[in-house]
Amino acid sequence: MDRADKPLALTLGDPAGIGPDITLLAFTARRALAIPPFVLIGDPGVLAERARMMDLAVRIEPIGDTSAAPSVFTEALPVLPVPVAGEVVAGRPSAAAAASVQQSIEHAVALVRDGAASAVVTSPISKAVLARAGFGFPGHTEFLAALAGLDASDAVMMLVGGDLKVVPVTIHIPLKDVMGALTTARIVKTLLISARDVARYFGVARPRMAVTGLNPHAGEDGTMGREEIEIIVPAIEAARDQGLDVTGPHPADTLFHAEARKAYDVAVAMYHDQALIPVKTLAFDTGVNLTLGLPFVRASPDHGTAFALAGTGKASPRSLIEALRLADTMQRNAGAAP
Amino acid sequence: MDRADKPLALTLGDPAGIGPDITLLAFTARRALAIPPFVLIGDPGVLAERARMMDLAVRIEPIGDTSAAPSVFTEALPVLPVPVAGEVVAGRPSAAAAASVQQSIEHAVALVRDGAASAVVTSPISKAVLARAGFGFPGHTEFLAALAGLDASDAVMMLVGGDLKVVPVTIHIPLKDVMGALTTARIVKTLLISARDVARYFGVARPRMAVTGLNPHAGEDGTMGREEIEIIVPAIEAARDQGLDVTGPHPADTLFHAEARKAYDVAVAMYHDQALIPVKTLAFDTGVNLTLGLPFVRASPDHGTAFALAGTGKASPRSLIEALRLADTMQRNAGAAP
Repeated sequence: MDRADKPLALTLGDPAGIGPDITLLAFTARRALAIPPFVLIGDPGVLAERARMMDLAVRIEPIGDTSAAPSVFTEALPVLPVPVAGEVVAGRPSAAAAASVQQSIEHAVALVRDGAASAVVTSPISKAVLARAGFGFPGHTEFLAALAGLDASDAVMMLVGGDLKVVPVTIHIPLKDVMGALTTARIVKTLLISARDVARYFGVARPRMAVTGLNPHAGEDGTMGREEIEIIVPAIEAARDQGLDVTGPHPADTLFHAEARKAYDVAVAMYHDQALIPVKTLAFDTGVNLTLGLPFVRASPDHGTAFALAGTGKASPRSLIEALRLADTMQRNAGAAP
Repeated sequence: MDRADKPLALTLGDPAGIGPDITLLAFTARRALAIPPFVLIGDPGVLAERARMMDLAVRIEPIGDTSAAPSVFTEALPVLPVPVAGEVVAGRPSAAAAASVQQSIEHAVALVRDGAASAVVTSPISKAVLARAGFGFPGHTEFLAALAGLDASDAVMMLVGGDLKVVPVTIHIPLKDVMGALTTARIVKTLLISARDVARYFGVARPRMAVTGLNPHAGEDGTMGREEIEIIVPAIEAARDQGLDVTGPHPADTLFHAEARKAYDVAVAMYHDQALIPVKTLAFDTGVNLTLGLPFVRASPDHGTAFALAGTGKASPRSLIEALRLADTMQRNAGAAP
């Protein structure tokens, strides 16, 4: 059995958020929706209690290693136990749980790096809660890069929703800092990592990449901003010199309608909202967040902890289900590549 | 016959662009699509030549004043002549035409202010061509404000596409200048004008307004930018004190999907792409650009001159047709108001 047939490693995320809820709901839909086998890395007691709150008849089965997971998965939710310290109350985040949240991610990464799991899928964490407990990373992406021994700049965020794949060059920084953070080198690096991993994971040998401008109308020949001329065009030319298929800079407002989307495989945008507005407008419930550039596949639902919904039965597992399926498809494509 | 039954005044826009093309195409669809009567303000010869290029059998009828337009409209395209100086070549913009482009707009505004037309609909102009001819305004919006004797800041741009209405607080400036241009007073003024004119023109007495943040996740409590706390929240509170129904600041990426759109009548965004990405992603062919704050209705198709398509028959009149219909509906609503 090679790595492709190992289960996906799914983290619990913040135990007071909807991670347990959507895990349980996805598990109950596994046959109807052909969801690939996964093993949950987290506290079995939290899952059992959440199942009780949601009135779901799910058997939770703690296992010792992942080899049992695929056979267990047909009957019960396999869990590699990572206990949470202190009491967990749905909807009431607590810094006491931070250590287990972090351990769940570390454990999932170790499993996939050891070949015991096929890919990592993460449930939402709360940056604010983790920061209070001394967690030194802005989010999953940076933590995963560190666990893989990489710089944060080697990890590239990609959003996938419907037929749209978008990569933001800058992410979780104030808008006023975007201009200073955008460099030709950073854009080129993002393009190279994106092209390599779209080829590897999506089977598109030489993806067509469309790059946005930064300013309205992509600066309109320098009359509304000069970053296109000074930073973005040189990056596009450098990427082409390295053999990539890149167009742009395109005005961002006209790049994302149905007809425009046919002309590229990946859009590369300059900042958070420019990338996330189109994908969440088009595919709010089914968007998946990927981290490219890592030595393994990582996918995540494209939403937050939604503490207010925890335990209510109202959280939707659709984005998690899409993340599980996409992670499975991606790792199989990578495994099948020559 | 009151103003509501007068024809719409449609400008030709840049005669080398697709303005003549979409005018002719909209006219030929007037019966099939129940397009309200309009009078074209521009050069009849340009229209006749473009009809020949596009192989369209349209009779062009110059008229002396707008009272003849509604009856003419059933048989021929009524034109109030504004001659273009110099030769017009489809697809080849020329500064020689700039004076007539400007006169066409001035004439349309004079007609609607005199009660001889019901509303102004403008075809696309080229800022670059007009600037070369010494035109002192960045675009239609600022020119129309000046013609109405208003400050440019009294004219508010609104994009309408499908069920979405979006107002950007700042528009055609480099992204780096947005932070400096955003003030509490400017946001409040934009909210007040938008609320008044949505009530007046769309019959929504007290529109629900959703305001975006500037930064990713609307700043996440100040951890990714402080403009929300320092500028936007005070504006929302001031607008509420004046009786408006305003929520926010909302993260922009999650404000535009179908479920989110049900919670507001108008979204107010902080800058160009934040407002235009969602509306053009959802309604690229049918988006309409409005100017609120003027003493008359002004609508425009939501696209540019598209010089490369002029005369080819490939330009789509859909956005112009939506603009003509929406302008007619809006001026009737305003006329019917108590």
